[in-house]
Amino acid sequence: MHDDVIDGSETRRGQPAMHRRFAAQHAAGRWRGSADSFGAGAAILIGDLLMAWTGELLRASGLPTAALRRGQPVLDAMRTEMIAGQYLDLLGQAAGNGTVESALRVIRYKSAKYTVEHPLLLGAALAAGVAGTATAETGAAGRTQRQVAAACTGYGIPLGVAFQLRDDVLGVFGDAAETGKPVTGDLREGKRTVLVTIARNRASAEQARVLRRHLGDPQLDEAAAARVRSVLTETGALAECEQMIRSSVREALAALADAPFTGEAKIALAELAATATDRAD
Amino acid sequence: MHDDVIDGSETRRGQPAMHRRFAAQHAAGRWRGSADSFGAGAAILIGDLLMAWTGELLRASGLPTAALRRGQPVLDAMRTEMIAGQYLDLLGQAAGNGTVESALRVIRYKSAKYTVEHPLLLGAALAAGVAGTATAETGAAGRTQRQVAAACTGYGIPLGVAFQLRDDVLGVFGDAAETGKPVTGDLREGKRTVLVTIARNRASAEQARVLRRHLGDPQLDEAAAARVRSVLTETGALAECEQMIRSSVREALAALADAPFTGEAKIALAELAATATDRAD
Repeated sequence: MHDDVIDGSETRRGQPAMHRRFAAQHAAGRWRGSADSFGAGAAILIGDLLMAWTGELLRASGLPTAALRRGQPVLDAMRTEMIAGQYLDLLGQAAGNGTVESALRVIRYKSAKYTVEHPLLLGAALAAGVAGTATAETGAAGRTQRQVAAACTGYGIPLGVAFQLRDDVLGVFGDAAETGKPVTGDLREGKRTVLVTIARNRASAEQARVLRRHLGDPQLDEAAAARVRSVLTETGALAECEQMIRSSVREALAALADAPFTGEAKIALAELAATATDRAD
Repeated sequence: MHDDVIDGSETRRGQPAMHRRFAAQHAAGRWRGSADSFGAGAAILIGDLLMAWTGELLRASGLPTAALRRGQPVLDAMRTEMIAGQYLDLLGQAAGNGTVESALRVIRYKSAKYTVEHPLLLGAALAAGVAGTATAETGAAGRTQRQVAAACTGYGIPLGVAFQLRDDVLGVFGDAAETGKPVTGDLREGKRTVLVTIARNRASAEQARVLRRHLGDPQLDEAAAARVRSVLTETGALAECEQMIRSSVREALAALADAPFTGEAKIALAELAATATDRAD
């Protein structure tokens, strides 16, 4: 919800974003002041409440105290690094150094760690020592919790990067009915994705003009979106993004092959790698 | 920081509010997009970080696990009720039912619990059973932690209400050099304080016109502020507020007299009641 307030997103998963819902309530009630300010204020507060509740949910989970003591620092790191990633993103959009490397760094902190790596690390920390889990079954002396954590990172970061790259591609080329967000949304917002950054770097003068003109235009229509899509394709940015997704998935699967997990866990995580980066998803 | 973003405050304790500082950084750097949006976004993220860190600070305090287990639910309730109070405030400003009772309810949740009651309850929960503290010294069978908590509430809520009423009075009648906020700030913002709500209820047609015209006017100058102050005084709203402060402080001190605290604690809390509601503070 805070992310949607910060970047002014109108929708979230096909529904109006929380700040838009409260703004609509304000407008319908003919209340005093600005509906947009009320919507943003309410969404900030609900986001605060949800963040406070994440910790309460973990502590009320009924897990043993020792497990909670292992899990809490992971949840703490997850929140701090996610917030740092959001700030890197905000700073990049504003100050715009615009290298592919900096766009990948945003993805790493904002998405890969938060969406894949830290949830796995949290589960591993909570499960350590619990009978019947992969980490308890491994037994062998060298297969410590540290190795499990390293495998979660080795699998989670590249998969998380691939997942975000796929999301960025679908945000421009996807089917709105399936992705739940309008394909013009990322373009209107002028989001500096890896896809767009590659295209900027490779664009001819004429292609650069198309990108400058349309990216970030809140009035961007379908015809303009089609012109931007052509540039993303013709510069080879789309193909390079697809290549990065494939190699990141391969890297994640290679880490998974070497991971000290049970066969069942490996199969589930290999399936996750496929569905999280699938073209149609 | 979130509060300042939500109500658009320019300053906090005499310094530019966090969102204004980041907006200034954006403007100085000649960055892309809106400086105000960047400032709000950065302040939302820093507020998120600080909220995440409150829990980490408590857990990293070095207190025994049993103490932390008692304290955590108090911190959880403190956050949830503070956020609920902020939302009540936002809703009241927008929908504006405008009774003194509703304004007092906002104060109770947003200020009294957060500023006085919950910090005391947190301290009492953390200290319960620690040798040498008031709660451990009481000894007698009936003086349970429950009684200590009831005393914290009995003292904390009325003192917190009095503290906020004093803050509202100083926000209009105080010395800017001492309060650290411009005395026109609350008036320009059109803040629906208890003070203003009483004045609205008691105003003549002419006095009501002055309030309608100037409260919430972002251009309000010192001459207009003086006219508003006259209405607040002439309607008796200021005198009634001062009366409410006095009776709330008396209520807090009466609860303190009956509290199962050490003499030393009672003296410190009586001093706090005086300084927190002092006219010149």
